[in-house]
Amino acid sequence: MERHFDQELKDLNQEILKMGAFAEEAIYKSVEALKNQDTKLAHAVIDHDNDVDNLELAIDEKCIDLIARYQPMAKDLRFIATGMKINAELERIADIAVDIAQRTLELVDKPLLKPLIDIPKLTSVAQNMVKMSIDAFIKRDIELAKKVLLSDPEANALRDLVQKELTEDYMAKDSSSAPRAVQLLLIARFLERICDHTTNIAEDVIYMVQAEVVKHHPEKLKE
Amino acid sequence: MERHFDQELKDLNQEILKMGAFAEEAIYKSVEALKNQDTKLAHAVIDHDNDVDNLELAIDEKCIDLIARYQPMAKDLRFIATGMKINAELERIADIAVDIAQRTLELVDKPLLKPLIDIPKLTSVAQNMVKMSIDAFIKRDIELAKKVLLSDPEANALRDLVQKELTEDYMAKDSSSAPRAVQLLLIARFLERICDHTTNIAEDVIYMVQAEVVKHHPEKLKE
Repeated sequence: MERHFDQELKDLNQEILKMGAFAEEAIYKSVEALKNQDTKLAHAVIDHDNDVDNLELAIDEKCIDLIARYQPMAKDLRFIATGMKINAELERIADIAVDIAQRTLELVDKPLLKPLIDIPKLTSVAQNMVKMSIDAFIKRDIELAKKVLLSDPEANALRDLVQKELTEDYMAKDSSSAPRAVQLLLIARFLERICDHTTNIAEDVIYMVQAEVVKHHPEKLKE
Repeated sequence: MERHFDQELKDLNQEILKMGAFAEEAIYKSVEALKNQDTKLAHAVIDHDNDVDNLELAIDEKCIDLIARYQPMAKDLRFIATGMKINAELERIADIAVDIAQRTLELVDKPLLKPLIDIPKLTSVAQNMVKMSIDAFIKRDIELAKKVLLSDPEANALRDLVQKELTEDYMAKDSSSAPRAVQLLLIARFLERICDHTTNIAEDVIYMVQAEVVKHHPEKLKE
């Protein structure tokens, strides 16, 4: 029975990794669609969201089922409960990629305002944060989780830069640019919100690991 | 023991209701601060967020503890697991109220662009959805949860109205209005995101109730 439970926990890890891969792919594709004004790719992101939702439900169900069947001890219980939370965060990340894809569709028949330099930069920060946060969970790696938190100011700064540039250099100078500038501004904010979700994941991981430490090895907190 | 567990579940309900009250209050105060350009009130919302975060952690801890100590049956387990998710949604709602308060601080020394008519309207839709979604959870009331979902199009429509008006009637006509218009546009989007969180809660409630039905009384699904 114990070995079976370990196997099921490994399966759960795999499913969460798959959810993470879905989220990363959705971010990548939605920004590629924006860069290349690719309607088809934007629609692909929107259409794939149904699979993401189904996987979220399946993971949730697996977590409840694992707890009900094995009545795991505190450490594993915490891992599963954290898995449920992370699952929800990843689903929200994929939802935001859908938001980006939808904004992209609004922009597709209009000339792009600028070479988008900072948006792709913000995108790669976001993708990296997603990857690190999932790794931190799977490996219960508190240092990696802290790295995610340390990346957040960069994401905020990039978002503010895009927002400032769009507001001051475009909207305030040429009012006809406003509708397009608003869409780009929203996309930058969406990307930063993705980063926020990864910091939620990182905080959950830190809390999970520390709670284990506090409950079972209080002396380790002094380290 | 059984009676003790019931009492603890009731306590958990109370804590989640308190979290809901925190979230509602934060929304109300942040928009009052905007309407009255009240810096002090905006700061109060920002300062209170720490208490919200602490309550979120306490509720999470209580959920894990209840599961570990009582190893509840599927129905109660689902209720507790859903409680954890709703707890996270409510914390995010309070976070968004902080975002609104921060945007308000940016606007406080500038004349307001318009009487804000649709933003207060969107606020009351959001507040009502928060209230209904928490009630739906506490009462396991699937009909009330569906009402929340049915309110979402209204919230989306109000947000789009605000966004269209700000973009077309302000930014596109008078470029000097852009910085203020952008802040208001973001506030409208924040309010609509609060509504999205309540639909997440409603979906969790529907899923929780239906999963119980499917697992224990599959015949009821035909109703």
